[in-house]
Amino acid sequence: MANIKDVARKAGCGIATVSRVINKSGYVKTETREKIEKVIKALNYQPNEIARSMTLQKNHIIAFILPNSQHLFFGELLYHVEEELFNYGYKLMLCNSSEQLEKEIIYLDMLKNNRVDGLILLTNNDVEKYLNKSLPIVSFDRLFDDVPLVASDNYQGGVLAAKEFLEKGCKKLMFIGDDAQGDFTDVITDVSKRRIGFIDYLNSQGIYDIVNLEYPLKNYFVSSEQFEHLLNPYPDTDGIFCISDSVAFTVIKVLEAQGKQVPEDVKIIGYDGGRTFNNLGKKITSINQEPKLIAKAIRKLLLNFDINDGNKKIIVPVKLSKGDTT
Amino acid sequence: MANIKDVARKAGCGIATVSRVINKSGYVKTETREKIEKVIKALNYQPNEIARSMTLQKNHIIAFILPNSQHLFFGELLYHVEEELFNYGYKLMLCNSSEQLEKEIIYLDMLKNNRVDGLILLTNNDVEKYLNKSLPIVSFDRLFDDVPLVASDNYQGGVLAAKEFLEKGCKKLMFIGDDAQGDFTDVITDVSKRRIGFIDYLNSQGIYDIVNLEYPLKNYFVSSEQFEHLLNPYPDTDGIFCISDSVAFTVIKVLEAQGKQVPEDVKIIGYDGGRTFNNLGKKITSINQEPKLIAKAIRKLLLNFDINDGNKKIIVPVKLSKGDTT
Repeated sequence: MANIKDVARKAGCGIATVSRVINKSGYVKTETREKIEKVIKALNYQPNEIARSMTLQKNHIIAFILPNSQHLFFGELLYHVEEELFNYGYKLMLCNSSEQLEKEIIYLDMLKNNRVDGLILLTNNDVEKYLNKSLPIVSFDRLFDDVPLVASDNYQGGVLAAKEFLEKGCKKLMFIGDDAQGDFTDVITDVSKRRIGFIDYLNSQGIYDIVNLEYPLKNYFVSSEQFEHLLNPYPDTDGIFCISDSVAFTVIKVLEAQGKQVPEDVKIIGYDGGRTFNNLGKKITSINQEPKLIAKAIRKLLLNFDINDGNKKIIVPVKLSKGDTT
Repeated sequence: MANIKDVARKAGCGIATVSRVINKSGYVKTETREKIEKVIKALNYQPNEIARSMTLQKNHIIAFILPNSQHLFFGELLYHVEEELFNYGYKLMLCNSSEQLEKEIIYLDMLKNNRVDGLILLTNNDVEKYLNKSLPIVSFDRLFDDVPLVASDNYQGGVLAAKEFLEKGCKKLMFIGDDAQGDFTDVITDVSKRRIGFIDYLNSQGIYDIVNLEYPLKNYFVSSEQFEHLLNPYPDTDGIFCISDSVAFTVIKVLEAQGKQVPEDVKIIGYDGGRTFNNLGKKITSINQEPKLIAKAIRKLLLNFDINDGNKKIIVPVKLSKGDTT
């Protein structure tokens, strides 16, 4: 399906000009207008999305509830979701929940009462009973009844990490993650497959001696001291797969404070893509989930909505992104 | 002015419960309800913002146009603006412009045609003529006619940087920034005061031999090679004040690649607060502008709107945040 950007590119003009032609507002040279109309026909572009969003009949607003837009991966995902929706004539309402169920409920209430056309949901809380399932909903990474899912290929991510450690000669492997079902939540997340894929692959290679560290969700601001406490009983570990880059970052800091060298003594793999900002040191080796592809998948499920159906899912491929920690 | 959070804190309950009391929706124990009503009275809380946002009469949506929510400082500002607006019953529409004038125009058009209650504008483009000034508007860092301004104390930031270099014994100082009025823009930004404050203070101390490197706005994705080219004619520089942490980051990388030690050979100060993510190395010394205070200032000007007036401004204080590069 062509979007306004495709039309602009093909017509050799800007998207604002295409917008003016579609909405019959503002001045456009006759020559340019005819060219754009030709391209619209050729690409079979359906401009009604943009056109309708200009009217008051529908808001064409999609709400995105996420824990924290400051998180580097979530922030990138947010950026691409906004861009993707924009290209299809939708606007994005940002709903940072700070992981607070109460804030999510207030947002979900607001959404029920306002004319919002859809919802993207990224939460660790069990908001099942607060969802208005007559609206198009897409969930990222968390499983809800009758709600379409987009996730990165978390299982394959675990497999890729295991392969990298074995290639690098690691013997004593560890997984460390916050995907355990703790006291705080009973939500099921697709993220646990990172752990499962990792352990499955190692088992398939005859390796069963794996340290499997779990701590409950919601504790994801684990302090350096707590990590030290978690790691201390396993001094001969030489490879640690961390459920996220944030965890990997803290683990590396703890190990280095203990005088260990990364990657010489211990190799580390994170998850999210090794994204950094103003990083003046090592780059984390990481499983890269691609926010742009995920944003496209979310848009597809959301805008081609017929009915909420938990069987609908798009699993987005991942890659190993080599950094300095393996 | 008390907000819903203050009420919840004082009443010892969650904000969702306060919301239910205000909106007379959902179950709340009589005892709790009475307590909340008492607190509302005691704090003189005006719950009509939240209450009205729950109806369809007004959208209570504020649009935030910014270049890129992935930028670490902008992302933090976005987070705090969303939280601040939420506490006052408003929702945030995220409008990433990617610095494209065309995308900004489309968003400004959408905003004109939709019932958006206000606009926060962070742009380097001259969008003056596209603004609907009958709406409440607040601009961050950029000056527009008749539009209220919020900025950090950029001048004082420059002074603080100069003082730090002199305290550390630097002799050959440089400013490097992208605040020049180039071919690409004729927008005036408050950010230039970083340069002015820096040079003014050095002059006041009898120092006039300052290398003042400018490159035009919009070129802010300057490559390492280009920075090398800029820096090469000044090999004896021992202190560089960079207009942003991103610039500081690239400058440090370039210097280190040339075999120079930071801070031993050259001291570096950035601007934005030395924010990092997954930073496994040095932390940049930086002038810290506080996103939470800036978000509060924006909310104040926006929600107490009577008329757009360029004389209205709030200048938010800054601090030097000591890192490892001075």
